[in-house]
Amino acid sequence: MMHHYQDDSLTLHTDLYQINMAETYWEDGVHNRKAVFEVYFRKLPFGNGFAIFAGLERVIEYIKDFRFTETDLDYLRNEAGFKEDFLQYLKTLRFTGNIRSMVEGEVVFGNEPLIRVEAPLAEAQLVETAILNIVNYQTLIATKAARIKHIVGDEIAMEFGTRRAHEMDAAIWGTRAAFIGGFNSTSNVRAGKKFGIPVSGTHAHSLIQAYKDEYIAFHKYARRHKNCVFLVDTYDTLRSGVPNAIRVAKELGDKINFIGIRLDSGDLAYLSKKARKMLDDAGFREAKIVASNDLDEYTIMNLKAQGAQIDTWGIGTKLITAYDQAALGAVYKLASIEDENGEMVDTIKISGNPEKVSTPGLKRVYRIINKANHKSEGDYITLDDENPQEEERLKMFHPVHTYVSKFVTNFEAKELHKDIFVDGRLVYDSPSIMEMQSYAKENLELLWDEYKRTLNPEEYPVDLSQKCWDNKIRNIQEVQKKLKKNGF
Amino acid sequence: MMHHYQDDSLTLHTDLYQINMAETYWEDGVHNRKAVFEVYFRKLPFGNGFAIFAGLERVIEYIKDFRFTETDLDYLRNEAGFKEDFLQYLKTLRFTGNIRSMVEGEVVFGNEPLIRVEAPLAEAQLVETAILNIVNYQTLIATKAARIKHIVGDEIAMEFGTRRAHEMDAAIWGTRAAFIGGFNSTSNVRAGKKFGIPVSGTHAHSLIQAYKDEYIAFHKYARRHKNCVFLVDTYDTLRSGVPNAIRVAKELGDKINFIGIRLDSGDLAYLSKKARKMLDDAGFREAKIVASNDLDEYTIMNLKAQGAQIDTWGIGTKLITAYDQAALGAVYKLASIEDENGEMVDTIKISGNPEKVSTPGLKRVYRIINKANHKSEGDYITLDDENPQEEERLKMFHPVHTYVSKFVTNFEAKELHKDIFVDGRLVYDSPSIMEMQSYAKENLELLWDEYKRTLNPEEYPVDLSQKCWDNKIRNIQEVQKKLKKNGF
Repeated sequence: MMHHYQDDSLTLHTDLYQINMAETYWEDGVHNRKAVFEVYFRKLPFGNGFAIFAGLERVIEYIKDFRFTETDLDYLRNEAGFKEDFLQYLKTLRFTGNIRSMVEGEVVFGNEPLIRVEAPLAEAQLVETAILNIVNYQTLIATKAARIKHIVGDEIAMEFGTRRAHEMDAAIWGTRAAFIGGFNSTSNVRAGKKFGIPVSGTHAHSLIQAYKDEYIAFHKYARRHKNCVFLVDTYDTLRSGVPNAIRVAKELGDKINFIGIRLDSGDLAYLSKKARKMLDDAGFREAKIVASNDLDEYTIMNLKAQGAQIDTWGIGTKLITAYDQAALGAVYKLASIEDENGEMVDTIKISGNPEKVSTPGLKRVYRIINKANHKSEGDYITLDDENPQEEERLKMFHPVHTYVSKFVTNFEAKELHKDIFVDGRLVYDSPSIMEMQSYAKENLELLWDEYKRTLNPEEYPVDLSQKCWDNKIRNIQEVQKKLKKNGF
Repeated sequence: MMHHYQDDSLTLHTDLYQINMAETYWEDGVHNRKAVFEVYFRKLPFGNGFAIFAGLERVIEYIKDFRFTETDLDYLRNEAGFKEDFLQYLKTLRFTGNIRSMVEGEVVFGNEPLIRVEAPLAEAQLVETAILNIVNYQTLIATKAARIKHIVGDEIAMEFGTRRAHEMDAAIWGTRAAFIGGFNSTSNVRAGKKFGIPVSGTHAHSLIQAYKDEYIAFHKYARRHKNCVFLVDTYDTLRSGVPNAIRVAKELGDKINFIGIRLDSGDLAYLSKKARKMLDDAGFREAKIVASNDLDEYTIMNLKAQGAQIDTWGIGTKLITAYDQAALGAVYKLASIEDENGEMVDTIKISGNPEKVSTPGLKRVYRIINKANHKSEGDYITLDDENPQEEERLKMFHPVHTYVSKFVTNFEAKELHKDIFVDGRLVYDSPSIMEMQSYAKENLELLWDEYKRTLNPEEYPVDLSQKCWDNKIRNIQEVQKKLKKNGF
C-alpha cells in the first residue's frame, strides 16, 4: 500500500518518459547541452481558417514554480525507483532557459512555432507535457470562442459551460480563453474573481420550483435583484413564463430594471419570435431575449437565418468542451541541439507522412503586413539570423498550390514572438485580459474575410524562407543518407 | 481596473445565478428550508449500455472545504455588488446537510439518482455547479475507459493523454477515472503520486533526435533503464527502428530486461505483424509490442480484427477528452422541499420534452439481483420509505416497451446509495482506487453481456416503483391543473 503524498507541486505533472529521458541525459552528461524545442500544431481545429493562441499565463506560472518538492522526490524515490544521485540533481533543478512565445490573443496558424523553448536538454524535456496540456486546451477554446463570436457579431456572448467542462481547471481557464477569443462574460464566479472577467447570470428553474409558483418566484427574485432577467421555461414558456414575466415587470414598474427574459429549451426561433411580440405588445420594446441550450456557431447561424429574436447568447457545453473537435494536436519537437563541440546542430523527425516531418533549426515567425491596405499577406518563417524587413521584396507561395507565388513589396514584417523568459528569468509583463481580447480583435482585422468565414475558409499562407526550406531539405537528405549507409 | 484576488478557495467555483438565488432565499427567510436535489443524467454516453460513476472523492474534498474566504467575500462585495448583510450570512456558511451517493466504480444508468443532496435550500443550491462539473467529467471518462477496456480485454491499457487533456485537472482526475474504469496505468507522474496509480512510460522520439542516432540512443537509454521498451518509429520502423532495437537487445543480453518495442505511427496492423516476426526470428518471442496513436475502442477492435500483434495499448486523446462525445449531461434537479409548515412537498420540472420531466420525491435506488444466477434484473427506484426487499415479487417493466413486464422473485435488493455526509459531517471512508477498480469489475459481472457490448447494447431496465410512478403522475397533474386555473 502506497502512502499518501501531498499534491503540493505541478512539477511532476509530466509524462514518466520525460523523467526517464532526463535521467538518461544526466547519466550520460549531456543534460546541460542547449536544446531548442518548438510547440506547434499541424492542422487548424474545426475547419477554421485561423486559431487564437492562449495559455501563456499559465505556462509562465508553471515555469516560475518549476521545482521538485520534497514530496515529489520522496515519491520518485519510494514508488518510482529513481536513485539518489539523480534525485540530488533534480532537487536543485530550476528552469534556466529562454522561452519566446506568441502572446495570448495572437492569431496563429498551422506549422508555425507558437512557443520556442531554448534550454538545457533535460529541463526542456521535463516541461514539455505541461506546456502542451495547457496550450492545447486554451488555444482550442479561444479559437472555438472566436469562431462562435464571429457569428454572434455585435450581440452579447456569455460563457455558461462550467457544469460540462472537463473538471475545474478547464472551467476557469477555458472561460478565460473564451474571453480572449471575444466572449463578453462568464457565469463562473471564481473565474471572475481570479481573472477579472465580467460575471453574468440570473436564476435557474429551481427558484421557480422552490416557490412552486412562477409569478411568486419572479416577485421574490426582483425584491433583491433590481436588474431582472426572468427564466421563463420552467412550466410553459408562452402560456406561463412570458405572461408572468410581463405581469411582474408591469406590477413593479420603475422599482426594477426589467432587462428581459431567458429561454432555455424548446424551439428557440419560434419561441423568441412569439415572446418578442408579447413583450412588444406589452410595451417592453427594450426588453432583451437571452437564449441558451446547446448552442454553437451552427445553431446560432441557423437561428439567425430563421429570424430568431435573440439579443444575448448563453453558450455552454459546445464551447467549453470544444464539442465538435475536443482536442488540438499541438506537438513539441526538437529543432536543434548543441553537439559535443558546443555547436548547435539541427535535428529533424522524419515520418512516412510528409506533413509530419518537422522543420529543423532555430526559427522566427513574421507576419507580413501590406502597408498599402493594412492586410496580412501571410506568415513567414525564417531561420533565427534572417530579417525579412531587410529584403526589398518577398516571394510568398500559395500554401497548397506552391507553383502559384507572389512577390510582396512595401510590407511590414512584424515579428510574432516575444521574450518571456531569459536565462530562467521572467522578463514579460502580461497585459490584462481586456487587452488580450482587444489584441485578438485587432489582429483579426488584418485578415481578409476569406480566411475568417465559418465554412470552407481560404487557407492562409504560412511560408518558409528560402534559407529555411533549403535547410529542411538538407536535413532530410542527411537522414536518408545515414539510413542507407546503415544498410537499410 | 479590478484589483487582484487570490485564488484561495473553490467556493466561488459556481455559477453566479446560484449566489443570486441563495440571496433571494436568504432575504425571503426560506434559505434554511430543507431541500432535496438529485444528480442524474438522462442518456448514457457513447451509445454505451452502462456508465461507471466517478468523482465522489473530489466532491467530498470540495464539500469539506466549502467556506467563503475573505478574498471570496471581498470579491463579491467590491466587484459583484453583493451587500454586507448577505455577505455576513455567507461568511459563516458551511455545508450542514446530508449527502447520499453512489460509490465510485458503481455501474450506473440513465435517470437514476447518482447523488442525493438533502440540505438547507441555499446550501444545496450553491454546491450544484461544482458537483456537476466534477461528476459529469469523471463519470464520462470512467465510462469511456470501461468501454475501451472491454475491447482491450486481458491485455494492458495505459492512459497516455495528459498533453491533450482539457487542462491540468482533467489530466489527473481523468486518468484516475480511467483507472477506476479498468485501465492499468497512467503516464502522468503527478497522478501516480497523488492517487497511487501505477505509472508507465519509456522514452520519446526526442531521445533519438538528441543523439541523432537510434542505435546510440537505445544504448544510452538502456545503460540506466534496465526495463527497456524502445520506441522504433523515429526514422523508419521496419528498416531502422526494429533492427536497432534487436541489435541493442542482443548486444546487452542479460544486462537488460528487454521488454519490447513501441509503435507510435503508421499502419499498426501491418507494422506490428512484421515487427512480431522480426522479434520472433531474432529469438525475442517474449518481447511485447506496445502501440499508441489516436487509439480508441473502434480502432482497437479493428486492429484486433486484422490480426495485429499488439500486447499493450497506449491510449491518449480519444480517452482523456472523450473525443466522440465530450460531455455527459448530468443535471441537478429539485425533487422535494420543505413548506412553510415544515412538511416536505414534492416538486417537479415539466418540459415539452417528456424525457426531461423530473421525478419528484425523496428516492432510493436498488439493484435487483437474481439470486439464482447472480445477474441483475434491473434497477428499481422507490420513494424513500419503501423497501423492495420486503416484497415477495417485483413487477419490472421493459424500459422502452412498457407493455412488456416481468415478475421477479428470489432476488436481493441491493441499495446503491451510501451515506457520505450526515448533518455536514463526513461519515464515509473512501476505499483505495484499487478497490474501486475491483468494485467496478465485479459489478460489471452482474450484467448480462447484452448490456455490455460495444455496439447497440440492449437497454437495461431502470424502473420506478408503482408508488414512485403514481407520485410522479400526481405531480404532473397538479402542475397542469394550476396552469389551467391561472388561465393558460
